[in-house]
Amino acid sequence: MKRNIITLLTDFGEKDPYVAAMKGVILTIAPHVKIIDITHNITKFNIREGAFILASIIKYFPRNTIHVGVVDPGVGSLRKPIIAVTKRSILIGPDNGLLMLAAEREGLLKVLEIKRHKFLLEEVSYTFHGRDIFAPVAAYIANGVKPEEIGEEVEEYVKLPFPKPRILKKKIIGEIIHIDDFGNIITNISIKELQKKSISIGSEITVEIHGEKEKLNLKDSYSKVEVEQTLAIIDSFNLLEIAVNQGNAARKYNVKVGEKITVTF
Amino acid sequence: MKRNIITLLTDFGEKDPYVAAMKGVILTIAPHVKIIDITHNITKFNIREGAFILASIIKYFPRNTIHVGVVDPGVGSLRKPIIAVTKRSILIGPDNGLLMLAAEREGLLKVLEIKRHKFLLEEVSYTFHGRDIFAPVAAYIANGVKPEEIGEEVEEYVKLPFPKPRILKKKIIGEIIHIDDFGNIITNISIKELQKKSISIGSEITVEIHGEKEKLNLKDSYSKVEVEQTLAIIDSFNLLEIAVNQGNAARKYNVKVGEKITVTF
Amino acid sequence: MKRNIITLLTDFGEKDPYVAAMKGVILTIAPHVKIIDITHNITKFNIREGAFILASIIKYFPRNTIHVGVVDPGVGSLRKPIIAVTKRSILIGPDNGLLMLAAEREGLLKVLEIKRHKFLLEEVSYTFHGRDIFAPVAAYIANGVKPEEIGEEVEEYVKLPFPKPRILKKKIIGEIIHIDDFGNIITNISIKELQKKSISIGSEITVEIHGEKEKLNLKDSYSKVEVEQTLAIIDSFNLLEIAVNQGNAARKYNVKVGEKITVTF
Repeated sequence: MKRNIITLLTDFGEKDPYVAAMKGVILTIAPHVKIIDITHNITKFNIREGAFILASIIKYFPRNTIHVGVVDPGVGSLRKPIIAVTKRSILIGPDNGLLMLAAEREGLLKVLEIKRHKFLLEEVSYTFHGRDIFAPVAAYIANGVKPEEIGEEVEEYVKLPFPKPRILKKKIIGEIIHIDDFGNIITNISIKELQKKSISIGSEITVEIHGEKEKLNLKDSYSKVEVEQTLAIIDSFNLLEIAVNQGNAARKYNVKVGEKITVTF
Repeated sequence: MKRNIITLLTDFGEKDPYVAAMKGVILTIAPHVKIIDITHNITKFNIREGAFILASIIKYFPRNTIHVGVVDPGVGSLRKPIIAVTKRSILIGPDNGLLMLAAEREGLLKVLEIKRHKFLLEEVSYTFHGRDIFAPVAAYIANGVKPEEIGEEVEEYVKLPFPKPRILKKKIIGEIIHIDDFGNIITNISIKELQKKSISIGSEITVEIHGEKEKLNLKDSYSKVEVEQTLAIIDSFNLLEIAVNQGNAARKYNVKVGEKITVTF
Repeated sequence: MKRNIITLLTDFGEKDPYVAAMKGVILTIAPHVKIIDITHNITKFNIREGAFILASIIKYFPRNTIHVGVVDPGVGSLRKPIIAVTKRSILIGPDNGLLMLAAEREGLLKVLEIKRHKFLLEEVSYTFHGRDIFAPVAAYIANGVKPEEIGEEVEEYVKLPFPKPRILKKKIIGEIIHIDDFGNIITNISIKELQKKSISIGSEITVEIHGEKEKLNLKDSYSKVEVEQTLAIIDSFNLLEIAVNQGNAARKYNVKVGEKITVTF
């Protein structure tokens, strides 16, 4: 089966020609492919952030899309290059957990270790597997090569589970898992966990963030509070988010990814 | 009629997967489409800047292109989602003026409010209409759905006129409407206004900018003055621009978008 | 012959609609083309950096690709707009050396000066030849117009040779030619020059950089040293690179492009 879309997610930034090299390799092998950038601005070496970003949007892509992820501090070590075959899509990248959160959401069927050299660039560097391994493998799969012709199933691979919040009787202790370009503070507390505690739009909650406590009404859109006011919101990831209407919440509270957020109700 | 190009202009930045989510939605519905990024680095919430940028380049795109713009501080409020149908193209986005300067330059025919839920994502969030409303509507129109099947014509919509300079006898008082990545200072004074005052290439003008007065010869290219010298130029937008050859004029004069510029002649 | 891929490399940044204007022009003339961004973040006016970046990855693109490069401080001066015809590809841009390092690696056949106005935009500005000259010329060539119909061969054009390191008996004096987004310090010392001195993976070398001397083992991958440790490596460009495993070498040594690097062995 031919596949038409390959997405790329990396921590390469947008200054260097590394992403372009991968695109050149893909189009040399599979000229029909559409290449879509997810982002190349994952915080360098931050596998967890890459995993979250990929998982958060993979469902919006068509079935049979091929997703290539390269946040790969272990490139050139013994970490395996893998293909995750799922019900909806194919994921390709390093075996460091980057792909697995997304792969599970897509219905993971099996994980293969990439083995056949004839589907790689002739010269494989020790420093750039995105170009030399993952890009050509993605392109051959787009051309109809079966993942099973390229790799062999493995039982063991690195998982990187989504960090669950601690749920207490009157309190949820979560953490900041992403700060977006607007400065919105995205937590690991999902709408489901709030619903179990009967918290919904309009509920009053107390949020403790970076040592400051704020009473906030849970809102459904940014514009429900005045400009520059803080609000709690269920965001487009279906996660609890602390935001400032037309402002930058991360700057206001001076927080970083990984910090704790406590919700009392 | 099938349409093949959808452009995207947002203030989302390039770090998050928001743009990619929109692209996934578009390609799920309309796999044939080519998606072109105008820019995702509009200053956050700056509708006026987004409107200028979109209007400044829309004519370079082919007829029948679909342009999606999302600079949308009012998302989730009562502001309408709209489709602007023009002689050359279709524009889709929030009813906050973002689209209208471009739409008028393209020959505005009518404005429709998006109404039919079957052309939206099943679950429409209150925070991300780019993904849930504008992307799928653009994709369905690319597939040949008529805008009139999706929305209903409205008489009232937000206009955001281009800020006209004040023209006096011996003076034009304009403002800075954009500072580009080179630091070039782009004003709202157009070549037409200069021509009416018989100012053309070679004319000497006095420019007052951030309290400093400079006598400048109007040039036709950056390289007509020495490196690091200031010049006045008619730029590729056909607007009066203050620039520094191979330098950064905005940094040199320490100016911001919105500041006044006075030209005496 | 129709050509299907046009790549773009500029110093325009990603904030303005300049790149999008070029894409609009290309797709108006040649709707079938796939446009691939190499990078738009070349340091402003740095022709040498642009030349290195383009040359470093051009071989990964398919035969018959058209590459457009615009790092063009001399736009509007007498510098010629050119087409470089090579065995593998076509390169289009200003005659300032930007294209020639890549063109030579692709097997340069001839250089043409762009002459025929009917292949340009109707109105050619003095400030934006990327949009008005290079984009339409690329698109017409993608449509099958022969470069010889658009330009005339010239004997003289600007070359910009790769800066060779000085090779002494016990020492190589090179320079920093690029610092990538990871902070990796890329030198002009190639694997061939090291091999001639019998330096290979595992060899111990002394590197002098910004006044500091470090004894380093030459490694083949970043992960061969501890996190935050410095290493010398042959990188994916086949050049000697000074890097810090999961860290930022350029920040650690506070170096800039152009500085000297001395290797003793």
